[in-house]
Amino acid sequence: MLNFQILHNNGNARVGILQTAHGLINTPSFMPVGTSATVKAVIPEMVREVGAEIILSNTYHLMLRPTAERINALGGLHKFMNWNGPILTDSGGFQIMSLSSLCKIDDKGATFTSHIDGRKYNLTPERSIEIQYLLGSTITMVLDECSALPTTYNNLETAMLRSLSWAERSKKAYVERDNYGLFGIVQGGIDEKLRKISALRLVEINFDGYAIGGLAVGESQREMFDTIDATIQHLPHDRPRYLMGVGKPTDIIGAVKRGIDMFDCVIPTRSGRNGQAFVRGGTLNMRNAKYTDDHLPLDQKCACYTCRNYSRAYLNHVVRMREIIGAILLTIHNLQYYQDLMDALRNAILNNELEHFTQF
Amino acid sequence: MLNFQILHNNGNARVGILQTAHGLINTPSFMPVGTSATVKAVIPEMVREVGAEIILSNTYHLMLRPTAERINALGGLHKFMNWNGPILTDSGGFQIMSLSSLCKIDDKGATFTSHIDGRKYNLTPERSIEIQYLLGSTITMVLDECSALPTTYNNLETAMLRSLSWAERSKKAYVERDNYGLFGIVQGGIDEKLRKISALRLVEINFDGYAIGGLAVGESQREMFDTIDATIQHLPHDRPRYLMGVGKPTDIIGAVKRGIDMFDCVIPTRSGRNGQAFVRGGTLNMRNAKYTDDHLPLDQKCACYTCRNYSRAYLNHVVRMREIIGAILLTIHNLQYYQDLMDALRNAILNNELEHFTQF
Repeated sequence: MLNFQILHNNGNARVGILQTAHGLINTPSFMPVGTSATVKAVIPEMVREVGAEIILSNTYHLMLRPTAERINALGGLHKFMNWNGPILTDSGGFQIMSLSSLCKIDDKGATFTSHIDGRKYNLTPERSIEIQYLLGSTITMVLDECSALPTTYNNLETAMLRSLSWAERSKKAYVERDNYGLFGIVQGGIDEKLRKISALRLVEINFDGYAIGGLAVGESQREMFDTIDATIQHLPHDRPRYLMGVGKPTDIIGAVKRGIDMFDCVIPTRSGRNGQAFVRGGTLNMRNAKYTDDHLPLDQKCACYTCRNYSRAYLNHVVRMREIIGAILLTIHNLQYYQDLMDALRNAILNNELEHFTQF
Repeated sequence: MLNFQILHNNGNARVGILQTAHGLINTPSFMPVGTSATVKAVIPEMVREVGAEIILSNTYHLMLRPTAERINALGGLHKFMNWNGPILTDSGGFQIMSLSSLCKIDDKGATFTSHIDGRKYNLTPERSIEIQYLLGSTITMVLDECSALPTTYNNLETAMLRSLSWAERSKKAYVERDNYGLFGIVQGGIDEKLRKISALRLVEINFDGYAIGGLAVGESQREMFDTIDATIQHLPHDRPRYLMGVGKPTDIIGAVKRGIDMFDCVIPTRSGRNGQAFVRGGTLNMRNAKYTDDHLPLDQKCACYTCRNYSRAYLNHVVRMREIIGAILLTIHNLQYYQDLMDALRNAILNNELEHFTQF
């Protein structure tokens, strides 16, 4: 059970506090992604310093290496990766479909071949829940089947119905602990009818929170927003809502307006390793020669470690030289940008000004 | 002018304090290498936290990119790279010979082609001093010609004599500032007679400190130690002595016993990026499968950030996954190991126990 308290509403958006065994989460919240038990290119203290309160880690990657049993024997994922805040783990469903080869899915579960060493694996709803238990995840996700878009209505429906049956089995397999939680995942592509069926049935099963899965897989932003609208009206007001794998700043702004409370995305970290910086009003490509003599910080409104201590000229230099510190500094900055964005969104909601919030 | 105070002698070894415009340096001292204005894989605060008091940066790399003029216009190297402690810059001589192509040397200076973009450059003693001035180096090195070993006596002698003439020109070109310093570099390969000539003439010219260059280029440890013995007896007792580019822990222990005060080497940082950890009594290859379930820290006698927070199992995982945090954590640890080694050497000298110090 997780306690979720809504402090303030502004339209469909809300500011809340999610209480967990590993600390409080102020929502709307952005979760940096720590795929293989590390938020890439930074140490956990840097993640904490930018204000992140919860991170996401990937069941698929960890079950392959170093394995859930090994992490459990070493004291759990929190201790293993030196992050004592909340951790949400996904169920492995999305990566099985996007990363593994020779993936076969039936009602029982998924059989797939590791993208690392070609070994065969089996993942059922029960096994996914067990893995997340072994990791010590603060928030566990049910195993779902996620369809790549575009696809046929029949495929979408089959995957959605299978995901519902897996959600039921996941709920049964889940071991309740105080201030730990289990989230269901709404599927159904961009079809409003399927989304409604999925949402209503998940609410019947009853979860600590509800995720919207199967988006950010190729649809337009308009389609994504419409799907959120069509889904959220069927979800309970008093539980957190999590939009999986999203997204760009404008995606997040639009989704918060529609009532989403939680996000995760690799964009800030991946962009940072590729020399791209998020700043108020857009992005900068730090490889660009025009920054070679630029003494300004990345973003004069940013107070992160990078902006306090380094010029664009220095970042241009280390990014072009492919120095690791370039990845470190841009990752820190981009994570700070995303946390500042969430902070600004929370303030806009508290001040009933969210409708005027269109960019950051 | 630099103030160097010797606090205690033990045999030929000594503990001292070198006072600079950017802070004190306790000797014997190890300088982490920050080639392109970054100690690879770490932020400056981590370098400071392990106890490093001075870093080395490379004139050759910085003159090519981003250029000394650019760094100067941005406020100097200290500000550029966010390191406010002392910085020693080498003269570029060693890298011209080891990294550039089409290098031509005559009495006037060196002409070479950049290893990065094929552009042609000219480096004279005067230009090297000017570059280091533009960078704002705390300790400037004279331009020297360094011969790869083995080579002929004639080649060694020619390079050594040319280096002496360059040292004289460097001294003339150098602009004195309080608590900044200029070091001469003894050359002569492993030939005792040439080393003596070089040392005596440099002492006549009079420098703030004396480096032994041209070692760690292929000779045995015995030859290196013999060359140090043959050189140091001709150097003044009251000036710091710096053994360039050295080395492994046993090299450093042996050189400190012979009276060396300063060291620099890429080994701790480069090894860290390659998954090798220095620990009391040897090294660990963190790729090795035997660490997969090892809950111990790298070194139970180490108090670094890495050893306080991560198991060998975690390091094994991230090194094998090629995660950047693996390079960060092992670099921090290896830099700490080297600083702890220097600390132990200073304590052994202060306690008159250095002769019993054979390994760490």
